[in-house]
Amino acid sequence: MTEHEERVARRGRPSASSRETLEEAALELFLEQGYEQTSASDIARRAGVARSSFFNYFTAKADVLWVGLDPLLAEVPPRLEAAATELVAGGAPKRGDGLATLRKVLLEIADTVQPETVRWAGSLRSVAGTSADLAATGTKRALAQQSALTDFLARAEPGLGRLQRTVCAGSIISATIAATVFWIEEGPTRGSFSSVVDEASAPIFLAYSAE
Amino acid sequence: MTEHEERVARRGRPSASSRETLEEAALELFLEQGYEQTSASDIARRAGVARSSFFNYFTAKADVLWVGLDPLLAEVPPRLEAAATELVAGGAPKRGDGLATLRKVLLEIADTVQPETVRWAGSLRSVAGTSADLAATGTKRALAQQSALTDFLARAEPGLGRLQRTVCAGSIISATIAATVFWIEEGPTRGSFSSVVDEASAPIFLAYSAE
Repeated sequence: MTEHEERVARRGRPSASSRETLEEAALELFLEQGYEQTSASDIARRAGVARSSFFNYFTAKADVLWVGLDPLLAEVPPRLEAAATELVAGGAPKRGDGLATLRKVLLEIADTVQPETVRWAGSLRSVAGTSADLAATGTKRALAQQSALTDFLARAEPGLGRLQRTVCAGSIISATIAATVFWIEEGPTRGSFSSVVDEASAPIFLAYSAE
Repeated sequence: MTEHEERVARRGRPSASSRETLEEAALELFLEQGYEQTSASDIARRAGVARSSFFNYFTAKADVLWVGLDPLLAEVPPRLEAAATELVAGGAPKRGDGLATLRKVLLEIADTVQPETVRWAGSLRSVAGTSADLAATGTKRALAQQSALTDFLARAEPGLGRLQRTVCAGSIISATIAATVFWIEEGPTRGSFSSVVDEASAPIFLAYSAE
């Protein structure tokens, strides 16, 4: 039994927090021996759970890199879907209505970001910064978000053509990614996450809301 | 000897076109048996060259996916570097000068795109559309381009802060990717590639050029 396993055993963590134990074990191992060198089995062993338990919580090792962000990302599509339905139910949306709603939803979600999430994101980014997994899984998430935003704009901002909707959505995703990296790098002097997202995305929202 | 190999042998292609032979062999195999199922050795065998010859032209199988685009992408950083040096040599650039120059350089490069390049890009995208390689190597290229554009803006558009430069560069990359996909999908009714890039990126250039 490793020192960490003993600590976990002593604490007698309830099984409800297996997920958190796996997350902590993963970050420890990534820091100790590198992201590439750590397997899902290593993480399960360190967390004191069966290998199959790892796959109850994650589909792959790379999923651990997104533990702080995935719950936020998961909120975007259903909230935009609900917002579009509400807008359309109120009659044909006016030019700029969809973008104003999109901005409001994104900043509301950004407002729920906790400081621990940022510490996690910063640590995981630094340990996995050069891994192909980070690029591949990040691209997958960015494209899924871009698709959700593009679909929203098709319903809620009918004045934008297909090409412009795609570029607008991609630019807002770019702005959100840049804001996240900027916020992590700025350290304690940064303002709230949502204020940085707002600053980063304001020119995009302005550009596409204009007549 | 396969039928293709016989054809190649009959044509007696000069060795100078080994690269083109490898590209054609790769696309044939990707279409016949799938991208994932094709190895660099398979491609070399079909092209009638030694496996080591493949690696004289490409660092990995995934590089073949970018044969049409890589020469264009390679032009961007040196041309922006030269343009920034010229702008700065003329005194402190005025607000909007850097963006106007960036737009000009991008459209000049887009103007050199040949129809064959698009056929290639369309075919390769469809055969490798769901491969992790396409996502990973695409992300790598997009980030390298974003970095070149961000560096250019730091020198040539000093009115933009660090966060805005990153978002502006990322948005222009988003616009160029969306324009490329749109152009491939539109088929023969599309205008010139540069006109679609112009249409896609115009709102971004306008947004960041404004006072």
